[in-house]
Amino acid sequence: MSATDQAQAAIPFYAEQADECRVFEHAFRQRLPVLLKGPTGCGKTRFVEHMAARLGRPLITVSCHDDLTAADLVGRFLIGDGNTVWSDGPLARAVRQGALCYLDEVVEARKDTTVVLHPLTDDRRILPIERTGELLQAPPGFMLVVSYNPGYQNLLKNLKPSTRQRFVALGFDYPVADVEQRIIEKEAHASPELATRLVRLATALRRLTDQDLEETVSTRLLVVAGRLIVAGLDERTACRAAIVDALTDDHDTAAALDEVVQAVWAPQD
Amino acid sequence: MSATDQAQAAIPFYAEQADECRVFEHAFRQRLPVLLKGPTGCGKTRFVEHMAARLGRPLITVSCHDDLTAADLVGRFLIGDGNTVWSDGPLARAVRQGALCYLDEVVEARKDTTVVLHPLTDDRRILPIERTGELLQAPPGFMLVVSYNPGYQNLLKNLKPSTRQRFVALGFDYPVADVEQRIIEKEAHASPELATRLVRLATALRRLTDQDLEETVSTRLLVVAGRLIVAGLDERTACRAAIVDALTDDHDTAAALDEVVQAVWAPQD
Amino acid sequence: MSATDQAQAAIPFYAEQADECRVFEHAFRQRLPVLLKGPTGCGKTRFVEHMAARLGRPLITVSCHDDLTAADLVGRFLIGDGNTVWSDGPLARAVRQGALCYLDEVVEARKDTTVVLHPLTDDRRILPIERTGELLQAPPGFMLVVSYNPGYQNLLKNLKPSTRQRFVALGFDYPVADVEQRIIEKEAHASPELATRLVRLATALRRLTDQDLEETVSTRLLVVAGRLIVAGLDERTACRAAIVDALTDDHDTAAALDEVVQAVWAPQD
Amino acid sequence: MSATDQAQAAIPFYAEQADECRVFEHAFRQRLPVLLKGPTGCGKTRFVEHMAARLGRPLITVSCHDDLTAADLVGRFLIGDGNTVWSDGPLARAVRQGALCYLDEVVEARKDTTVVLHPLTDDRRILPIERTGELLQAPPGFMLVVSYNPGYQNLLKNLKPSTRQRFVALGFDYPVADVEQRIIEKEAHASPELATRLVRLATALRRLTDQDLEETVSTRLLVVAGRLIVAGLDERTACRAAIVDALTDDHDTAAALDEVVQAVWAPQD
Amino acid sequence: MSATDQAQAAIPFYAEQADECRVFEHAFRQRLPVLLKGPTGCGKTRFVEHMAARLGRPLITVSCHDDLTAADLVGRFLIGDGNTVWSDGPLARAVRQGALCYLDEVVEARKDTTVVLHPLTDDRRILPIERTGELLQAPPGFMLVVSYNPGYQNLLKNLKPSTRQRFVALGFDYPVADVEQRIIEKEAHASPELATRLVRLATALRRLTDQDLEETVSTRLLVVAGRLIVAGLDERTACRAAIVDALTDDHDTAAALDEVVQAVWAPQD
Amino acid sequence: MSATDQAQAAIPFYAEQADECRVFEHAFRQRLPVLLKGPTGCGKTRFVEHMAARLGRPLITVSCHDDLTAADLVGRFLIGDGNTVWSDGPLARAVRQGALCYLDEVVEARKDTTVVLHPLTDDRRILPIERTGELLQAPPGFMLVVSYNPGYQNLLKNLKPSTRQRFVALGFDYPVADVEQRIIEKEAHASPELATRLVRLATALRRLTDQDLEETVSTRLLVVAGRLIVAGLDERTACRAAIVDALTDDHDTAAALDEVVQAVWAPQD
Repeated sequence: MSATDQAQAAIPFYAEQADECRVFEHAFRQRLPVLLKGPTGCGKTRFVEHMAARLGRPLITVSCHDDLTAADLVGRFLIGDGNTVWSDGPLARAVRQGALCYLDEVVEARKDTTVVLHPLTDDRRILPIERTGELLQAPPGFMLVVSYNPGYQNLLKNLKPSTRQRFVALGFDYPVADVEQRIIEKEAHASPELATRLVRLATALRRLTDQDLEETVSTRLLVVAGRLIVAGLDERTACRAAIVDALTDDHDTAAALDEVVQAVWAPQD
Repeated sequence: MSATDQAQAAIPFYAEQADECRVFEHAFRQRLPVLLKGPTGCGKTRFVEHMAARLGRPLITVSCHDDLTAADLVGRFLIGDGNTVWSDGPLARAVRQGALCYLDEVVEARKDTTVVLHPLTDDRRILPIERTGELLQAPPGFMLVVSYNPGYQNLLKNLKPSTRQRFVALGFDYPVADVEQRIIEKEAHASPELATRLVRLATALRRLTDQDLEETVSTRLLVVAGRLIVAGLDERTACRAAIVDALTDDHDTAAALDEVVQAVWAPQD
Repeated sequence: MSATDQAQAAIPFYAEQADECRVFEHAFRQRLPVLLKGPTGCGKTRFVEHMAARLGRPLITVSCHDDLTAADLVGRFLIGDGNTVWSDGPLARAVRQGALCYLDEVVEARKDTTVVLHPLTDDRRILPIERTGELLQAPPGFMLVVSYNPGYQNLLKNLKPSTRQRFVALGFDYPVADVEQRIIEKEAHASPELATRLVRLATALRRLTDQDLEETVSTRLLVVAGRLIVAGLDERTACRAAIVDALTDDHDTAAALDEVVQAVWAPQD
Repeated sequence: MSATDQAQAAIPFYAEQADECRVFEHAFRQRLPVLLKGPTGCGKTRFVEHMAARLGRPLITVSCHDDLTAADLVGRFLIGDGNTVWSDGPLARAVRQGALCYLDEVVEARKDTTVVLHPLTDDRRILPIERTGELLQAPPGFMLVVSYNPGYQNLLKNLKPSTRQRFVALGFDYPVADVEQRIIEKEAHASPELATRLVRLATALRRLTDQDLEETVSTRLLVVAGRLIVAGLDERTACRAAIVDALTDDHDTAAALDEVVQAVWAPQD
Repeated sequence: MSATDQAQAAIPFYAEQADECRVFEHAFRQRLPVLLKGPTGCGKTRFVEHMAARLGRPLITVSCHDDLTAADLVGRFLIGDGNTVWSDGPLARAVRQGALCYLDEVVEARKDTTVVLHPLTDDRRILPIERTGELLQAPPGFMLVVSYNPGYQNLLKNLKPSTRQRFVALGFDYPVADVEQRIIEKEAHASPELATRLVRLATALRRLTDQDLEETVSTRLLVVAGRLIVAGLDERTACRAAIVDALTDDHDTAAALDEVVQAVWAPQD
Repeated sequence: MSATDQAQAAIPFYAEQADECRVFEHAFRQRLPVLLKGPTGCGKTRFVEHMAARLGRPLITVSCHDDLTAADLVGRFLIGDGNTVWSDGPLARAVRQGALCYLDEVVEARKDTTVVLHPLTDDRRILPIERTGELLQAPPGFMLVVSYNPGYQNLLKNLKPSTRQRFVALGFDYPVADVEQRIIEKEAHASPELATRLVRLATALRRLTDQDLEETVSTRLLVVAGRLIVAGLDERTACRAAIVDALTDDHDTAAALDEVVQAVWAPQD
């Protein structure tokens, strides 16, 4: 298990989509946990980084996965040179520090994690550490944020209503055109023209509902394509590598996407 | 595994639905274990906290999950600095203290937990601790309470009749309108008008049987929405975040729920 | 794993259904193991307690479950303060003491338990303890008793013929009316009138074959209802909590059962 | 895992069915392993005990089960008081002693057991013990015997052809009438008349192909019924407990079997 | 896990089927790994023993199974009297000695074995031992040989193309009549007449495509039958035990096979 | 788990298919991770070796498999002679050295590996090592490269979009005729005529879409066939062993492929 602790120096750039910042702040002040829902690469992680910096709180991020257990979050005894030492997990660390704890793709984690999340998400706001006998009371600065992607949940993996109904929920989607353009200019150091073109490409690709894609092009992929083009790679090769081949393995689908790429960079420009 | 021990100072607020308090007290006096059945967020946990305080007993709560074993409940030897120390689990602690032990969502626990529950639920009222050779006789103050949600049980996870028939059973549902209004006023510091409006919303939403919702709006969600509104968030944003997005990921369903929200806060008010 | 050792002072009350006591005694004298078959709460456990006391043998009971292994039954080395100590499991203890060993719901146990049961169920009557090198010869007082409930066995969990054909089998069912009435009077301190009424209720409920119940009302549930009524709870509330809600989660089924309850306590009495 | 070592004093009684003793002796002399196939309780185990005594070899029996591993058969290091000691498993013990090693219901064992059986079943006749570096050469007196019951094998559990084709195979069935009568007289101390009656019962029950029985009545069950009758239990009660209830849980099937029992003990006798 | 190391004194008898020896030698000289495909008992193992002796290389054989892991092949640290000692697995031993390493039924092994096989099967010919930090360079004498039986592979167990395409493949089948006769004479010390008869039996049995046999009679079974007959057992009993009962558990199929046996030993001889 | 560290002396031969070298270099300069997609044996591994040498970076290769965990990649504490020592896994080693880390067939690895890959694939480029408290910042020379084969992915094993969209993707296929000919000449020391003939064979075989092959002939197989022929084996035997039997176990399919082989080496040459 691997968590990353971040104490941002500056507030990272985030282009607001609706009123998610305001709702998030209210939830933070009301000490309510928040659930972020939305597709891959639409900016959920960046949003949390932005809010943590804005609220002046450290941020601890955990990418959840199939084998993540409650002990991974809370901590465990490690056996060192002849004696055992308690080692806080990222959730315990976040509670102690009054940090934001962000569990990315929380539904991937093992089910026993819910047992440590529940008492942190109601009035009690406590984290009992059985193994050491400690009972941590979350300070006002602590906030639990979890995310998941409704697009590829399956029957085996979803949040039980008894867990889900403990969170204030925020839905995310890809940003609207001018917001997305601004993001590409900023993140890929792209010219307004290039950014416009990439957003136009995104719009065209996202309209392709007849293609069998697991997910469509994210803002993140547009930024990567932008970076490769800015670095000198020609547009079609860059879009093929950063977007088309990243989205599909199917030859026919790739050809269809490629046609869209070609159309966007056709001679009229 | 993580259990929380609570010794309440005051009796927590609980709005009785029917005669559940009386039945619970009789079961306590008769030393019979109790099974609480009902949907998410209808007040089962609060009910147990209330009864524990009313009966003057400490309360130990365990949120059950897939990996919870008998050893998690009874206890285990921990290896410390060179020697091993026995560490009581929450069930053993509850038996020793004569506390109420509340196993929330007991069907989620591993099947080997039934073996330690059975001798505690019949005339014997004993908890044998194999590893230490102890045999704990439960004092009169000890009571076992378990809960489960009949709404989302599956074939693999339910109580065997031989376990289930050992408990006095209490069915719970969402409270009736005036009780629910009183709860919202109390818990969210909401004005009677706001509380009325939220209950009207709940009634309308719970009537929507044609929508494909795993669960409908709980009293808990109404309280969260109330808190956000009281804190200054506008009603529709608060209801979207606290209720609509907490209940569904589906765009069409969310739109349908949103319409209900709008209707409740339509200009006639 | 948790076993309970009982050395009864007095012979516990047991109302014989047929000639099960005589067959059990013959099996004990012939040193044959016995298999008890029957539904939940029909008195199998009480029968074994009764017979153990009658035969003057100590009784060791093990509630079997999914994770119960051969080592749980036979014993294991425990690591104590610097050295390891052998700790007999309940089966080894029963063999050494010449006790009755009762494995309740034996089909729930892990399959490797059969390997320690087989040599105890044929002419050899031995329990080899591999880890210590011991080979225990069961004394005449030792008897193996197992039970299972044919009503809710599934394809994955049943006794292999090669195990099953090693036991003398005794079928149990709910007792006939006058026997059941006597049990309720005795166990719930119920008046003959109350006991008659509860048996009448049981007869009516057990006739309801059109309801989708996993099991029907057991004698145990009738006793619990009786205790609650004797303690002062009104009949309908007591029957709802002890019987109806213990048998079903389905609203329609519960309503149907409730009607039967009402009919039994209708004004003509 | 639990194995039993037997060094018989006298040759146990075994009533030969066909020429199985001769084939077994030839296989022993030719140092070929043997596979016994046949239904529950038809005498396979007794046959191996008989042959072991006749050939003057010790016998080590292992009842195989789902969790039986190669290490259980070969041995493992045990951690004792501060140091580790190698402990031979039953197969290694059998090879060292030149004993017959009988793996009862071998298909139940874990698949990794085949790896230690293979080099013992071809020309090499060796048992390599990886953990100690030993390579045991089986002496002429060692013989591997395995059994399985073709009647209840499933798709997941059977012998791979590459394992199976290493054994000389012997098919067993219930003995013919006069042999079976002789067995019952001998084992249950039954009178010729009682034995005749029990064999007649067996013949009638085995003819019942329209009943849905997992297995039919074995010689073993007839012996148990005989013992109970000789001890004083009436015939119908004894047959009900030892045969009918041991074969089926189904009320209709039991009634059908009971009728056969009644017919055999009808007044004409 | 159990591997056998063999350093043959003489070249074991092997009757070549086609040009498999020549292809194997070329692969050895070109340092290419070899995959042997073919049914049970057709001589794959003997072929490898023969080639190892012919090429003057030691042979290490591993019978693969469900629980065989990479660590079983490469080695592990064993904990001895207070300190840990590295113990080479059979694959590491083969690489160090420049031996042939034969993984019999390789598809049975756990998937993590492919990770240690891959770098040994391409130009690198290396075996990295992570735990000790060693990187073994295979000497010219090392050769990896694996086998599998295409006849009973299933969907879960087969070689991934990325593994399979690393091997030179050799298909095996039962030998033609005169080769098979020669093998039986040699291995069972059978007279030419007996060997002819057994081959005639094999030909007849292998032609029975209408019988539902998992595999047909192998040369190995013919040799076993031959040995029993040479030792004095009559032909039909020997063929029944060594061939018919080894091939099938089904009574009708066994009867059909028995008829073929009878026809081959009919009076005209 | 077994990784191989390579510090190439010379740049290994690689015949470029399209502009994959240029895209790879841009990704390296932009510090973007790369995903290689393509069938078995088309040159993905060789391409990575080539690029690592060209970019002057060491290369660490990990063949992924079912049991490969995050700890295998990051490292673990090993218990040596009385004390524990941290041992870097291949990924940590690659980050420390600024090497290319190539995870071959990454989808085979356990899901918890994604958690350590994610923070290495975005702007942060960090590898947190929980167990030691270290947080490694990847130097500019570090690059993560993963591969997978879209041809035999299944539903259980594929890259989640949230992982996949973090990589620049490069699609590979078998090289065109003249490139493939050049590779065979170089790698198998084949004459131009032989190489031409083998490429002609490949073209014919790859056109056989009506045969049920899991994969078709790879360049690797052509090279192996070439080596065997150059070493003196006749063409048809070499192609049978290196190509036909490596591609299929089915007799009819093998016959069809053999016909193609014969046609290519027919007398007209």
